Amino acid sequence: MDLSRYLTEKKQLVEQKLDLLVAKDSEIPVITEAMRYSLFAGGKRLRPVLALLSCQLFGGLEEEVLPFACCIEMIHTYSLIHDDLPAMDNDDLRRGKPTNHKVFGEGYAVLAGDALLNHAMETMADIIVKNPRLEYIRALDIICKSSGISGMIGGQCIDLYSENKEINLDTLKSMHAKKTGALITASLAAGAIISGAEESDINNIMDFGNLIGLAFQVTDDILDVSGSEEKLGKSTNKDVRIHKSNFISFYGLEKSRKIVQELIDEAKVKLNNYGSRGYYLRELADYIINRDN
Amino acid sequence: MDLSRYLTEKKQLVEQKLDLLVAKDSEIPVITEAMRYSLFAGGKRLRPVLALLSCQLFGGLEEEVLPFACCIEMIHTYSLIHDDLPAMDNDDLRRGKPTNHKVFGEGYAVLAGDALLNHAMETMADIIVKNPRLEYIRALDIICKSSGISGMIGGQCIDLYSENKEINLDTLKSMHAKKTGALITASLAAGAIISGAEESDINNIMDFGNLIGLAFQVTDDILDVSGSEEKLGKSTNKDVRIHKSNFISFYGLEKSRKIVQELIDEAKVKLNNYGSRGYYLRELADYIINRDN
Repeated sequence: MDLSRYLTEKKQLVEQKLDLLVAKDSEIPVITEAMRYSLFAGGKRLRPVLALLSCQLFGGLEEEVLPFACCIEMIHTYSLIHDDLPAMDNDDLRRGKPTNHKVFGEGYAVLAGDALLNHAMETMADIIVKNPRLEYIRALDIICKSSGISGMIGGQCIDLYSENKEINLDTLKSMHAKKTGALITASLAAGAIISGAEESDINNIMDFGNLIGLAFQVTDDILDVSGSEEKLGKSTNKDVRIHKSNFISFYGLEKSRKIVQELIDEAKVKLNNYGSRGYYLRELADYIINRDN
Repeated sequence: MDLSRYLTEKKQLVEQKLDLLVAKDSEIPVITEAMRYSLFAGGKRLRPVLALLSCQLFGGLEEEVLPFACCIEMIHTYSLIHDDLPAMDNDDLRRGKPTNHKVFGEGYAVLAGDALLNHAMETMADIIVKNPRLEYIRALDIICKSSGISGMIGGQCIDLYSENKEINLDTLKSMHAKKTGALITASLAAGAIISGAEESDINNIMDFGNLIGLAFQVTDDILDVSGSEEKLGKSTNKDVRIHKSNFISFYGLEKSRKIVQELIDEAKVKLNNYGSRGYYLRELADYIINRDN
């Protein structure tokens, strides 16, 4: 099967599960409507798919990893809702659709974000209380860490204080490692841990995650200057307009492309030990460079 | 020891632990500063103290309950930060001090709230990964549920869509049971569970929690019309100004006072089986009526 068919299949699987995990509430419909609006606004589902790919790599059971993969997507989605708020990035469009606060108002957008984060934790706690396997607990722990102040939220903070400010390359890299890299890496780690991978394999797949996470972000910066607004579903050249440092401002377009290629090559080396089982993860690493949205 | 000395002592204990659990971060100082600003803005620490009182009632170990009690306080504090935002209640003052967004700006206030919720979950997951006791997992589960869409966030949503709208008494009660009651009840439940209480005792103390939670909220409404702005540290008569239904608008001041007394009497009956061990919880129930802030 080629990667795009694989991705479509897994995306569907994730969305079916998300539909069950974040069901419409009849008593307070507005909150689940707002949560579901952003949850089903057409994301790539990169993080949950990475968790499932990591599960496949280590011979785990997909149905065990799937709910954790969906919780990671809830956390990712909440971060986008809050990130789009007027007080943060002030974005009107996300994936070609009006952002959450444009549809539901700012108050509900704040609450829908809070609710998705809480619901992710609640869903994992529910699984663990029924089946207190240490692997599930470890997955919860790493997901919590990756989305917290030493991970995603920390990265958001660096992002916020970097606006209209000169930052150095180390800060830029640290920002992306936290803001985007941490949750991508946690997705792979959670998939590996739940699948019973050895510690050395867990560390190895996390190294792979750090490399593709950074490559993903540099590609985002490349698409910001060279991509199509229509395909991206959001406005381009945003970083230049708001005077925000990105990889292009440090390296220029050509060198940035070279850096992405090097990161992806290095990432693929991490998969050398896994033979044909690493096929889709290798393909996915290539897809990160070649994507147009 | 009288209740006020007991409360002072436990408040200090909670604050010392919170100081350790939410340490200043050297890499990204602004986020922990914003978190700590609201965390140490002088709350009553009612929820963590309830968890500790429940622990004492069931003969548990205080040091086991304390970190969970602090996590509940983090969740409560995050909800206040987001609740005060211009898109929600738009409050400039909280406990006599400028609200979080007034000091740090809206963007950081959103992130500080997110960070406190995430940090609570991260802290509990860290404890559980080191010591995967089922009691800790059950405490996590009940805390997550009480702060989610079927609990606190659900209540916030009802609150938000009730502004400038007539609501009926059932909706008002449901709003408070979720918004305030759920986390108060979870505090008592978590304390009981971690202390190894029997199921019947856990249910009993949760009934107590539901009753004092509602009494607490009716008292809030009473203080809103009859309290002192100086003592409350916030403006009074707010509900009337923003045309928000509350217990006073349904029952008037006198009947509301009577309802509180009945709720507290009923709550204290739940403690009948525990003899002198229930002393502080009985005192606390009375304190809820007689407080002036």
